[in-house]
Amino acid sequence: MTYRYPEFADPKVRPRYTGIPTFMRTPYAEDWTGLDIGLIGVPFDGGVTNRPGARHGPREIRNQSSLIRRINHATKIDPYALCRIADLGDAWVEQPFELKGAHDEIAAFYKAVQAAGIVPVSAGGDHSVTLPIFRAIAADRPVGMVHFDAHCDTGDDYLGSKFHHGAPFRRAVEEGLLDPKRTIQIGIRGSVNDLGIWSFSHESGMRVIYIEEFHEIGVKGAIAEARRVVGDGPVYVSFDVDGLDPVYAPGTGTPEVGGFSTLEAQLMIRALGDLDIIGGDVVEVAPPFDPSGNTALVGATIMYEILCIAAAAHARRNGSGG
Amino acid sequence: MTYRYPEFADPKVRPRYTGIPTFMRTPYAEDWTGLDIGLIGVPFDGGVTNRPGARHGPREIRNQSSLIRRINHATKIDPYALCRIADLGDAWVEQPFELKGAHDEIAAFYKAVQAAGIVPVSAGGDHSVTLPIFRAIAADRPVGMVHFDAHCDTGDDYLGSKFHHGAPFRRAVEEGLLDPKRTIQIGIRGSVNDLGIWSFSHESGMRVIYIEEFHEIGVKGAIAEARRVVGDGPVYVSFDVDGLDPVYAPGTGTPEVGGFSTLEAQLMIRALGDLDIIGGDVVEVAPPFDPSGNTALVGATIMYEILCIAAAAHARRNGSGG
Amino acid sequence: MTYRYPEFADPKVRPRYTGIPTFMRTPYAEDWTGLDIGLIGVPFDGGVTNRPGARHGPREIRNQSSLIRRINHATKIDPYALCRIADLGDAWVEQPFELKGAHDEIAAFYKAVQAAGIVPVSAGGDHSVTLPIFRAIAADRPVGMVHFDAHCDTGDDYLGSKFHHGAPFRRAVEEGLLDPKRTIQIGIRGSVNDLGIWSFSHESGMRVIYIEEFHEIGVKGAIAEARRVVGDGPVYVSFDVDGLDPVYAPGTGTPEVGGFSTLEAQLMIRALGDLDIIGGDVVEVAPPFDPSGNTALVGATIMYEILCIAAAAHARRNGSGG
Amino acid sequence: MTYRYPEFADPKVRPRYTGIPTFMRTPYAEDWTGLDIGLIGVPFDGGVTNRPGARHGPREIRNQSSLIRRINHATKIDPYALCRIADLGDAWVEQPFELKGAHDEIAAFYKAVQAAGIVPVSAGGDHSVTLPIFRAIAADRPVGMVHFDAHCDTGDDYLGSKFHHGAPFRRAVEEGLLDPKRTIQIGIRGSVNDLGIWSFSHESGMRVIYIEEFHEIGVKGAIAEARRVVGDGPVYVSFDVDGLDPVYAPGTGTPEVGGFSTLEAQLMIRALGDLDIIGGDVVEVAPPFDPSGNTALVGATIMYEILCIAAAAHARRNGSGG
Amino acid sequence: MTYRYPEFADPKVRPRYTGIPTFMRTPYAEDWTGLDIGLIGVPFDGGVTNRPGARHGPREIRNQSSLIRRINHATKIDPYALCRIADLGDAWVEQPFELKGAHDEIAAFYKAVQAAGIVPVSAGGDHSVTLPIFRAIAADRPVGMVHFDAHCDTGDDYLGSKFHHGAPFRRAVEEGLLDPKRTIQIGIRGSVNDLGIWSFSHESGMRVIYIEEFHEIGVKGAIAEARRVVGDGPVYVSFDVDGLDPVYAPGTGTPEVGGFSTLEAQLMIRALGDLDIIGGDVVEVAPPFDPSGNTALVGATIMYEILCIAAAAHARRNGSGG
Amino acid sequence: MTYRYPEFADPKVRPRYTGIPTFMRTPYAEDWTGLDIGLIGVPFDGGVTNRPGARHGPREIRNQSSLIRRINHATKIDPYALCRIADLGDAWVEQPFELKGAHDEIAAFYKAVQAAGIVPVSAGGDHSVTLPIFRAIAADRPVGMVHFDAHCDTGDDYLGSKFHHGAPFRRAVEEGLLDPKRTIQIGIRGSVNDLGIWSFSHESGMRVIYIEEFHEIGVKGAIAEARRVVGDGPVYVSFDVDGLDPVYAPGTGTPEVGGFSTLEAQLMIRALGDLDIIGGDVVEVAPPFDPSGNTALVGATIMYEILCIAAAAHARRNGSGG
Ligand SMILES: [Mn+2]
Ligand SMILES: [Mn+2]
Ligand SMILES: [Mn+2]
Ligand SMILES: [Mn+2]
Ligand SMILES: [Mn+2]
Ligand SMILES: [Mn+2]
Ligand SMILES: [Mn+2]
Ligand SMILES: [Mn+2]
Ligand SMILES: [Mn+2]
Ligand SMILES: [Mn+2]
Ligand SMILES: [Mn+2]
Ligand SMILES: [Mn+2]
Repeated sequence: MTYRYPEFADPKVRPRYTGIPTFMRTPYAEDWTGLDIGLIGVPFDGGVTNRPGARHGPREIRNQSSLIRRINHATKIDPYALCRIADLGDAWVEQPFELKGAHDEIAAFYKAVQAAGIVPVSAGGDHSVTLPIFRAIAADRPVGMVHFDAHCDTGDDYLGSKFHHGAPFRRAVEEGLLDPKRTIQIGIRGSVNDLGIWSFSHESGMRVIYIEEFHEIGVKGAIAEARRVVGDGPVYVSFDVDGLDPVYAPGTGTPEVGGFSTLEAQLMIRALGDLDIIGGDVVEVAPPFDPSGNTALVGATIMYEILCIAAAAHARRNGSGG
Repeated sequence: MTYRYPEFADPKVRPRYTGIPTFMRTPYAEDWTGLDIGLIGVPFDGGVTNRPGARHGPREIRNQSSLIRRINHATKIDPYALCRIADLGDAWVEQPFELKGAHDEIAAFYKAVQAAGIVPVSAGGDHSVTLPIFRAIAADRPVGMVHFDAHCDTGDDYLGSKFHHGAPFRRAVEEGLLDPKRTIQIGIRGSVNDLGIWSFSHESGMRVIYIEEFHEIGVKGAIAEARRVVGDGPVYVSFDVDGLDPVYAPGTGTPEVGGFSTLEAQLMIRALGDLDIIGGDVVEVAPPFDPSGNTALVGATIMYEILCIAAAAHARRNGSGG
Repeated sequence: MTYRYPEFADPKVRPRYTGIPTFMRTPYAEDWTGLDIGLIGVPFDGGVTNRPGARHGPREIRNQSSLIRRINHATKIDPYALCRIADLGDAWVEQPFELKGAHDEIAAFYKAVQAAGIVPVSAGGDHSVTLPIFRAIAADRPVGMVHFDAHCDTGDDYLGSKFHHGAPFRRAVEEGLLDPKRTIQIGIRGSVNDLGIWSFSHESGMRVIYIEEFHEIGVKGAIAEARRVVGDGPVYVSFDVDGLDPVYAPGTGTPEVGGFSTLEAQLMIRALGDLDIIGGDVVEVAPPFDPSGNTALVGATIMYEILCIAAAAHARRNGSGG
Repeated sequence: MTYRYPEFADPKVRPRYTGIPTFMRTPYAEDWTGLDIGLIGVPFDGGVTNRPGARHGPREIRNQSSLIRRINHATKIDPYALCRIADLGDAWVEQPFELKGAHDEIAAFYKAVQAAGIVPVSAGGDHSVTLPIFRAIAADRPVGMVHFDAHCDTGDDYLGSKFHHGAPFRRAVEEGLLDPKRTIQIGIRGSVNDLGIWSFSHESGMRVIYIEEFHEIGVKGAIAEARRVVGDGPVYVSFDVDGLDPVYAPGTGTPEVGGFSTLEAQLMIRALGDLDIIGGDVVEVAPPFDPSGNTALVGATIMYEILCIAAAAHARRNGSGG
Repeated sequence: MTYRYPEFADPKVRPRYTGIPTFMRTPYAEDWTGLDIGLIGVPFDGGVTNRPGARHGPREIRNQSSLIRRINHATKIDPYALCRIADLGDAWVEQPFELKGAHDEIAAFYKAVQAAGIVPVSAGGDHSVTLPIFRAIAADRPVGMVHFDAHCDTGDDYLGSKFHHGAPFRRAVEEGLLDPKRTIQIGIRGSVNDLGIWSFSHESGMRVIYIEEFHEIGVKGAIAEARRVVGDGPVYVSFDVDGLDPVYAPGTGTPEVGGFSTLEAQLMIRALGDLDIIGGDVVEVAPPFDPSGNTALVGATIMYEILCIAAAAHARRNGSGG
Repeated sequence: MTYRYPEFADPKVRPRYTGIPTFMRTPYAEDWTGLDIGLIGVPFDGGVTNRPGARHGPREIRNQSSLIRRINHATKIDPYALCRIADLGDAWVEQPFELKGAHDEIAAFYKAVQAAGIVPVSAGGDHSVTLPIFRAIAADRPVGMVHFDAHCDTGDDYLGSKFHHGAPFRRAVEEGLLDPKRTIQIGIRGSVNDLGIWSFSHESGMRVIYIEEFHEIGVKGAIAEARRVVGDGPVYVSFDVDGLDPVYAPGTGTPEVGGFSTLEAQLMIRALGDLDIIGGDVVEVAPPFDPSGNTALVGATIMYEILCIAAAAHARRNGSGG
């Protein structure tokens, strides 16, 4: 027997503070058949170079995501009307003490997601996890990317490892997963130890909008550039919350003072709604450094914004509206 | 005997961290005779739909309001030179477990305030309390309103109740207390469960400035619209702190990422200084979610800004300057 | 298809920080068939008289309960070996603005649990929720109770209501649900407004161990008294975290300085392991007042201790060991 | 006109979270005529040697003291039935940048209190403020003292000053205000820079119970010693919250790990109820270091315990019961 | 022997969370010979008029400054390539209870710095400490200043003292240390008790950009004014973190709602890179009011921005590039 | 030149809140010649199985250790009079992404310490770091250990690794570094997934005092057992702060409700003062989970207690007193 109706039912019918927190109160799905979009946690922070804690990100993002409702008031997108969406649980790691193996475990999870024909929208974890996600979903051709971050994350070996949260996009290009010519990075800033630290971005042809340029050209200028760079091909949206000013996202491992605002981020993401979005993630939410919980709420909100444009794209690809 | 001078004396003469906290260090008045403006707390959060805690708002706003001084440096308004102002204490509720009765108790308090000829400037409490305030001060004719909020608060029944913090202004229009044609709502945003949730606002003729439009038209555009909409008649200013971005007001019950800033709010309120302000409130400050105390400081500051324009209007009405 | 193995699997096999948080990582069950014990959240705090926030208790207790493992190291009880245990979700309230109706909704949920033959172990919510639980599980005969609290909760009407978190056990006796002669209350303290406030406890025959007596007789003395009072009949364990000293449970609505410790509480609960435990609860965990999260961890730990003795009792009643 | 009844009325009739916070919800009195006991804040921390913040103590103690009710459940003392008690406001300092002058200002306030025949029960402020209190109330004869603290506070000059929070009781003895033979210090501990730092205590004849001895002799042993030492003469109770273990009082300026508990403190104070208590204080509550607010709640509770025994003593002295 | 390499070595080679925190991981220098720029803490808050705590600023700024790297990504300035830079430790005060003497102690420290030919870049402490710094470095001629603050700090006596954190720049002009005609103050706001409180700024010829004007003219307008006002002479940069909106710097003693952002501050400071910078400071970081640590991170970042322009100026003066 | 006197001078002469924080304000030593005891940080948490953050432990312990003074008031031990003591900086890890290599790096550091004849007293880091410390200091014979913890840390492989913070003492016995017959473990508790999880402790002959036994036998009983077990040979003291109740040490990665108190810990450590202490550590302080900072203060205090007994032992071994 079941009392009343299922736990993960329409959030309209029950108060926000109740229930077991899945992402956006979507149903938790062990059977992935027939799903369009999967919301996935990646509770792994073995790739951080400074403050750990992003392993706790998925839980708190799930918790705060109860505040998010169904329809995007600005774009009118209702992702749940367009797609079948579920919480797939976590791409967790059985052997977290070994970084490369951990990435392999994560990739294996996403390969199963990919094989099931599901578009992944993920919550990290540290930014190193985007690489194994790419290994699953970009295995057959390089993808374009709109990347929000304070850091280009195209660095080289650090602390003895090729793989860490400051290098995923160099590795992704090297592995043929990411098309640098169709990649734009927005919000880059912060002091550097080596002026050439992000030279891979520049030399490979990525478009880098430093925060100073963003301050000049504003949301509209950045949107125009993003649309120009990524064009019509498949696009992934990767959102590192440290791209935001730390006041919006204090709960992160390598904060850099002087970033963009959440509203600016929302406006930029929404403007990508007619692109061929094939997935996205929100990473680097580190709840232990987030006394007010706002970083996780921001993470949930951005995840929802990405979900909306991913749902619209998926529906268009499947001829089902949007 | 009394030692030195009265407790609630001119804040210039004693350090800010001392004394029993009344609003803005105004005297606490049990005798309301001769007062022009009353500062009132409404420690009630029985109308919230998510996180409670706004019942603790008046105390913390009083506490932080010791930081506020006498004169508005931008407008040069000294409300204390224009009006006799006191802290009237709290419109507290004897039977808080019953929502409708609680509203009746609050209304009774404000009817006494109204009968005493006092302009109320209040600190909530959740936004449901503005309805009983209106029942007292707008009983004889509908008023106009400048409403800052992430939500229109013109929703319908929810969780089994007509009365909650998401519906006061629908009820106020229905009861003939609020003139929707003279109402403007600024900062609206956030995902919705039903695209028509705020249709009452639109259909009744309220002017709704969603945050995306605000981002376009800016402070000046919003001011022009507000002045155009409310015109010359009596105007109430209702300020829900969740209209601000959550970084300015994390201590609130239903935060929505992506709002306006405190400076933008201040500039907008000050621009209403020549309107016929008949009262105002700051609501939804929930101290348990405010680890730094900044939300209460913001609440106190906005309350002071409203006090300034209310004092100027009162003085004009009474021919006493301003 | 399902990737790897079910979400709510044996907590031994995956890191604690991963996954969707159910109580103790038990499976979430919409089908209640064949279950022995149900772990239930009651996210309701409409009965508080001071600081609200206990509505958020079940979520945070679930979250922290991931730290709890399978077997009680002290008593060697493995509740999962003795009983089929699941998280039944929340006994949430559709119409939370109305206290009596809310209690009816909660009772209805527990009546379904009772009808399914499931022993409930619950996490509140404020202490008023124990009354509707009793209305379901004690409907056919009064039960005994071991009650840990700073307050007797046998008060009378307050703030206009018969029902609030300071009165459930007076109402339970009046309704024939609780046998006062088989009730012991441990940890009572705090200033009072009326020396007779807890006279109902004394006059009805409850055994009250004030904290001063507890300081004298210690854990062993309290255990002896508890066993003597409740005897062989059915016993419910109700644990209000404000019985603990506030340093162990700052996150609660009506803290009283000077309580017992968590270790003392654990030792007392374990000593009830051979009694006929028919259910229990942990109430008054209010996360907004719990900056370190320790109160929720304490709540989860105490809930586990009660689960262990409830499982042992259930197994004995069913001849299946323990 | 006045709405309903006075602000600072009987706390039984209104919820705890409402109203303007005076100590214990007593009336604020500008007219001191006829009062027996005055509750006084001393918002001064100019005498601290490490972390400041105790200047904010009185406000937060007032705020938390709303949780305290009328009657002591253990001793049955109702101080309000025995004495006329009011909040006298703060002994604040007009020229806080000058330590000796600040002490003079504080002493002047207490001399007025003394002249009015009022017994002071105070909330600091740092411990240096007890010296000017003594200068007022012990001017005509030395008093005895029960002193709870991690430090003897009988040090000598430090950081260039004779007067600071580590020296008040040396100065008090030197000035003939404190009788060292009738002084007991309980809870002393912590590393020292000079083994002789507290030699003044020993050489002047104070009884020092280090925390290690307290661990041996317990509450009962300490009570016996306190009663033996202070005898029948006038006694002041000075409670530095750093005497408690820091888990009970993290919000203090010079915490020392390893102290006594709040319950132990309560039991000790209550055992002094038949002595000739002539005043007391709770000092060193520093809210900026108190994220949960528990230190202020502890401060309010201890202040209430001292109030109870002071009221009983005053009533006996005046032949009015107790 | 020494293991590996020195503690305060190049921050590139070791993780940020390791080591003993000096400012920016520069070496701690007891031998000042040959240094160009000294990073100095001033752990003194004896001049505050409201909330203390800035004495703890230098430690937390040092702690957070480990996140700052070598080169300014926007201006390409590498201060360590241009100048020999070290942490000189703290200009701490032996007799902190006496404000004027404390200032003398601080001045003595800076006179030694000045005598060693070292440019000071400091972290306060409250803003009163800039006056003794000026007494050392501006002793032979008045300097110009770019001053970021919510307050002009040109007030008069307050709380019985000529010297406090609201008056240093009036005193500096009076003492011939500061040229008001070459002084600009940016970000001024907040209510006032006296409209003339900052009249000294206006009458002495300082350029005051209130926040409302800043909102109008923006970063570029403010930069143009700053460059026009200070011209070619020696310039000091004084940055009170309360000039920022409190969301960027909640950890401060006298916050004023409605300030500029960190990015705006960074852009303004960088635009001063070709001026004759002779020193600078970041003041009023009060860690006890900074639960997330962001204020200290902001303080460290601004200190680094000032360091960059100071290094460029010093290098130009010495003909060594920049 | 040097201003005044060296930075890391006698803590008596300067206020606690000043200066660059080394452990206990001892000098930072790059030249280890002639030192007796080294205070060492191990900022590594790559071995945690749940919440990370202990990598930040050394910094915060250093920061809080400024509160610790010279002489142990209870034992009269002045470690600085008995031994030459310095802060040796951190045994930090160049390649932290690889657990076994990280342990090798840590061991290399301690081998250098051992070669210099220095007794190490360390601050972790997670408990896995004690294994590489043993590899250095116990390489030539197994040592005895007094081990305070909630966990035996003698588990087997977990999450794919032989090495993690739940297994160091199994590995140490296997590697011949630790004599299980001379090992006592105090405070063990918490639920377990496998009743045999700590069977290695029992089977190898360690003496395990579970917290329930500790509650029975108390401090004196535990001391007697510890002294009996470890006897006259070389003894290491390893203090995991999760042995304490979480109220004393909330800032840790795997808290277990129901532990001993700090005073009990202090009394036990002091009672080991005449044993042959050859080193010790305090581990598992995780500052991101420590909002009040008390865990780090407790860590510093316990480190000091271990330092005192280590200094006394060293002095005896060297015939220099104690
Ligand atoms: Mn990134
Ligand atoms: Mn980043
Ligand atoms: Mn609203
Ligand atoms: Mn709202
Ligand atoms: Mn209770
Ligand atoms: Mn209760
Ligand atoms: Mn003291
Ligand atoms: Mn003390
Ligand atoms: Mn300022
Ligand atoms: Mn300033
Ligand atoms: Mn351990
Ligand atoms: Mn442990």
